[in-house]
Amino acid sequence: MAAGEERETVDERMRMAELSKRSGVSVPTIKYYLREGLLMPGELSSPNQAGYGAEHVRRLRMIRALIEVGGLSVAAIGDVLSAVDGPELSRFELLGVVTGTLDNPQPLNDDSEVARARAEVDAAFRRRGWDLEFRASAIDTLVGVLVRMSQLGYGSWASEALDTYLDAAERVAEIDVEHSLRISERAEVVDGAALMTILGEAALGAARRIAHIQVSARKLGQLDEREA
Amino acid sequence: MAAGEERETVDERMRMAELSKRSGVSVPTIKYYLREGLLMPGELSSPNQAGYGAEHVRRLRMIRALIEVGGLSVAAIGDVLSAVDGPELSRFELLGVVTGTLDNPQPLNDDSEVARARAEVDAAFRRRGWDLEFRASAIDTLVGVLVRMSQLGYGSWASEALDTYLDAAERVAEIDVEHSLRISERAEVVDGAALMTILGEAALGAARRIAHIQVSARKLGQLDEREA
Repeated sequence: MAAGEERETVDERMRMAELSKRSGVSVPTIKYYLREGLLMPGELSSPNQAGYGAEHVRRLRMIRALIEVGGLSVAAIGDVLSAVDGPELSRFELLGVVTGTLDNPQPLNDDSEVARARAEVDAAFRRRGWDLEFRASAIDTLVGVLVRMSQLGYGSWASEALDTYLDAAERVAEIDVEHSLRISERAEVVDGAALMTILGEAALGAARRIAHIQVSARKLGQLDEREA
Repeated sequence: MAAGEERETVDERMRMAELSKRSGVSVPTIKYYLREGLLMPGELSSPNQAGYGAEHVRRLRMIRALIEVGGLSVAAIGDVLSAVDGPELSRFELLGVVTGTLDNPQPLNDDSEVARARAEVDAAFRRRGWDLEFRASAIDTLVGVLVRMSQLGYGSWASEALDTYLDAAERVAEIDVEHSLRISERAEVVDGAALMTILGEAALGAARRIAHIQVSARKLGQLDEREA
């Protein structure tokens, strides 16, 4: 094949070696994703020969992003992709599946400390006008942080910070949801929502770590000046 | 021992079985943390008998919080606790160690897409008056999200959302840093900073997932009304 033809053949079926080259994912890993059902099978051109297309390259990029940036396990990616590929879920149901894969709250004891933290979270939700009917598993993660910080002697930080954290989270969620509502193709709605939820969380965590360093440097600099 | 005496003996040295009971961590797990150096050794009262105190209960709670809420590996916890226990690091150096354990950015290719995303991030930092000298590894995580979203066709979300994400992160970091500057005891500064950074990130992620559900429900409800 002449070099000039390459661009035009992108959408023709390619063999696995070519798929590996284009996606940067090794052949054994591609075979593993096929066996695990994360990657859809290629089109059989003969009993021993499958052809792959641009949709396979894209799917591999999505899998790699969910693993490398999102830190998801192969099993969790399986859940997300089944929701993306599966019977038509509403946007809202899909969001439940995707946010659920990011959550792994430890069971909370049914004690007075947990009850106090739950009441604190509920009160903060009510101040924001949030609907207490939606019992997302992430609520237990949040309650768990309050309980543990309080047990370790930092309960005042947790109580002080809660409204600011929820406020920051809501501003970010507004942008994400606004954007996802402007996407109209179903295929894009579902994988876009999954990617935004998962990669966006990694981005927000990274942004907070960077901001911690920036804000500390600024405030400690100010302190040094005051002390000097 | 009479039940009434129990409270008064909390600070007396206890045996491992008692430490396990108070902390809720099993004896084999406590032994594992001792071997890995995460838990400081007890005080030897005889060659085969060590005594543990309130500082051991607290340390076990901290380890469990970092594993169960923060999702840290035992190796990462080792890094955090060495920084906490180790030679006096400045607040700022400690923050570098702690934020570093949360980061696992994949190496980025040195291509034009990465260069474009880096320039975008730098420009956003400049708009906030952030110092570009601090090359936190989290910056690569952020650049990685921009590159991958753009490869997957959602570059417009990433570019649109970047300032809002950084703004949300900065507000949260302000609260955290303000609070940590009010803590004056060195022991508390170091473990408080570590806990706030790590558990706070889990809390912010959870808050965003909850907010996604709340905001989606609100906006989809509004859409339904408009369409009806």
